[in-house]
Amino acid sequence: MTDLSSVLDRADQNLTASLERLFGLVRIRSISTDPAFKDDCRKAAEWLMAELENIGFEASVRDTSGHPMVVGHHPGARTDAPHVLFYGHYDVQPVDPIELWEDDPFDPKVKDLGNGRKIVTGRGVSDDKGQLLTFVEACRAYKDVHGNLPVRVTVLFEGEEESGSPSLKPFLEAHADELKADYALVCDTGMWDADTPAITASLRGLVGEEVIITAANRDLHSGMYGGAAANPIQILSKILGGLHDETGRVTLEGFYDGVEETPSNIKSSWEALGNSRSDFLGEVGLSELAGEKGRSLLELLWARPTCEINGISGGYEGQGFKTVIASKASAKVSCRLVSGQDPEKIRESFRAYVRSKIPADCSVEFLKHGGSPAIQLAYDSPVLTKAKTALTEEWAKPALVVGVGGSIPIVGDFQKMLGMESLLVGFGLSDDRIHSPNEKYDLKSFHKGIRSWARIIEALAK
Amino acid sequence: MTDLSSVLDRADQNLTASLERLFGLVRIRSISTDPAFKDDCRKAAEWLMAELENIGFEASVRDTSGHPMVVGHHPGARTDAPHVLFYGHYDVQPVDPIELWEDDPFDPKVKDLGNGRKIVTGRGVSDDKGQLLTFVEACRAYKDVHGNLPVRVTVLFEGEEESGSPSLKPFLEAHADELKADYALVCDTGMWDADTPAITASLRGLVGEEVIITAANRDLHSGMYGGAAANPIQILSKILGGLHDETGRVTLEGFYDGVEETPSNIKSSWEALGNSRSDFLGEVGLSELAGEKGRSLLELLWARPTCEINGISGGYEGQGFKTVIASKASAKVSCRLVSGQDPEKIRESFRAYVRSKIPADCSVEFLKHGGSPAIQLAYDSPVLTKAKTALTEEWAKPALVVGVGGSIPIVGDFQKMLGMESLLVGFGLSDDRIHSPNEKYDLKSFHKGIRSWARIIEALAK
Repeated sequence: MTDLSSVLDRADQNLTASLERLFGLVRIRSISTDPAFKDDCRKAAEWLMAELENIGFEASVRDTSGHPMVVGHHPGARTDAPHVLFYGHYDVQPVDPIELWEDDPFDPKVKDLGNGRKIVTGRGVSDDKGQLLTFVEACRAYKDVHGNLPVRVTVLFEGEEESGSPSLKPFLEAHADELKADYALVCDTGMWDADTPAITASLRGLVGEEVIITAANRDLHSGMYGGAAANPIQILSKILGGLHDETGRVTLEGFYDGVEETPSNIKSSWEALGNSRSDFLGEVGLSELAGEKGRSLLELLWARPTCEINGISGGYEGQGFKTVIASKASAKVSCRLVSGQDPEKIRESFRAYVRSKIPADCSVEFLKHGGSPAIQLAYDSPVLTKAKTALTEEWAKPALVVGVGGSIPIVGDFQKMLGMESLLVGFGLSDDRIHSPNEKYDLKSFHKGIRSWARIIEALAK
Repeated sequence: MTDLSSVLDRADQNLTASLERLFGLVRIRSISTDPAFKDDCRKAAEWLMAELENIGFEASVRDTSGHPMVVGHHPGARTDAPHVLFYGHYDVQPVDPIELWEDDPFDPKVKDLGNGRKIVTGRGVSDDKGQLLTFVEACRAYKDVHGNLPVRVTVLFEGEEESGSPSLKPFLEAHADELKADYALVCDTGMWDADTPAITASLRGLVGEEVIITAANRDLHSGMYGGAAANPIQILSKILGGLHDETGRVTLEGFYDGVEETPSNIKSSWEALGNSRSDFLGEVGLSELAGEKGRSLLELLWARPTCEINGISGGYEGQGFKTVIASKASAKVSCRLVSGQDPEKIRESFRAYVRSKIPADCSVEFLKHGGSPAIQLAYDSPVLTKAKTALTEEWAKPALVVGVGGSIPIVGDFQKMLGMESLLVGFGLSDDRIHSPNEKYDLKSFHKGIRSWARIIEALAK
């Protein structure tokens, strides 16, 4: 028996006790958005500190202006081993509407669905208490066998993720030296499906702009002025209508500068998946891929930039009709960005394009609405490769390298504030009903999640 | 002294008494929109009936479900003379904000502005009590001299013009035989400027459409769906942005079918006017002609069709930003039409164009918002020519043939319901402040307006 099999066996033997601990954590009503549960949040933090101490972490609960952080350090067996920062959050979403829950959300249970699937129920069991405990329990099993951990581990558990993480950035800033590691491990994402593990390697960035076009200094009557006076809605429509060419590509100058094609092996793996998780578009009443022609669904969502109009407004929008030529028209536009794109350059290119289309006697105003670059873990990064192998071995099915079409703020913060890349591995499933009544976590996700992390930390140490 | 000079002299001699009568009518608070003035409206109708009877009309006040109509008939001197229907309205706009009036709006006065201009002040003095009395007083002067009128005259005075004329169509329908004449004379428009008389020969028509595009069956998150799911605002922008080509022409198929070029002498007269009434665009903060290139301001406003977006709405329109892909987007679009264009054909062409741009998995709904053809009095019509000569002689300045960019519903109703064209001659000025505090009518407009109608009815009889 290899050392690793001993650890995995130990994880198996621990499972009942691990589950008991998960139950213990889920029972704490750590709803961060509701001040009534302030003490429960602290209780959850203290609970986690105690568990970390149990397995040899030097752990502490750290006050913030909101709910406390839990920080733990474990020196690991070797000083030349990598140093990882594991991130999770102990706070949970509110439980309303409570009447839709089949069981008490804070009285977790294991339920046998009868089709070979067992689930654990309760608020936060998937998001993120069950997920973060997969890592803690992996450390415990490793420690049980080896008396130590193969890598140096810092743990950061947050209690405000469900309420916008107001204390996180100040905390990272104040404790940068303490928290900075070689890379972060984040367990808050999902698998591709119940059998297929996944690593999230890319997150799209975002640049948001609001554009307000003013023509006449007041609304005009279209009978009196129509045909001679500039119509800002018409100008805006022409501008927005020109953002994409016939092939769905964004026409802004320099928009694709720095955008690289996804490696063909990754692209083929996505094409092979097709639409298999579910009828992604069909579920929302659509059937045709919009956007850039000649790209697969998953490539469009994970690896291609977009330019979307999120809102538009102008003139008479009420019931009936008014033959008005509006003074102003406005739109909110955002681009989802991929690796290589600079949000500020794209903002400038958008503004220059819009300005070039504004008649001399009209004016345009821009409002800036956020900008953050995309995150991309290099597809050939050793960390990614090691984790992929570890997951593939555990699940006996090739681990997928996937993307997320939106952003996960913590990953950007780690990148920006601590100069640290993140490896995103999680075991949630799309039917976990996170944020909704009857949240669940597959027992298999919990069990094999623990085993997966044991394999990953072993692999990372090599 | 010719017969006509006798009539004009008589009009001059009558002026003080004519003015007294105008004062009498203005003193009646015939505000049609406010039920508190219901009795005043009837009083104005009765006042008019009495004045018509005084000059030999067979006149009556006719009840409607709203304010009454006044109808009068005068057989004229000759049965082979033309039969004209003269239209005016005795109701007036409310006077709010009353504190901005320099004088009591219902206590009319003549004021000498000191620059050679005298004005009559009071609510309705221009719109339309003063204007309609120019015709009545012209009839009186003619009658005083000749004991008869040169044409057969039917008069229709309405009391609901300022509140949307709800009773007018039913009344025209019920009394079509009584009211139908060879053509209508309408005195509710203006002069080009204080010295230059004008005949309004064209009114643009209108077709209004609302278009609602639906993509997904719910709003989507642009992080999850952006780049793959259809965005209805983007589809709508592309559609609306394609309504005009680079030269400002409307691209809808068949849009210009039947549209004729304005006769070059009329076009030159408009070009000569340029922007002389005032800085038309400058007043509203604009400086460049929008719309079709190569056309003068007045041609664009009076003789060219348009396609305007009057309102647009979709997605997140509030403060801040939301990265949403909306389920729906909508716009209100209207075309101002000129003679020769069929509103329903244009509606169909618009719908066909929009449908051709809707992806197969999206849907579009249309709401119809009115449609009426343009009105055009033939530029070579004898009625127009006679009136033009009469006005030119009275004002010692060539009368202009002008257009109105919007519609005047009564003219369309006469056309549609009585098959009757209208000659629109009025003496209002752009600074009359109709509908606003301190409404006025130039004494010259009133005096020469009376003389003008005397000349016109004499000319029409020939």
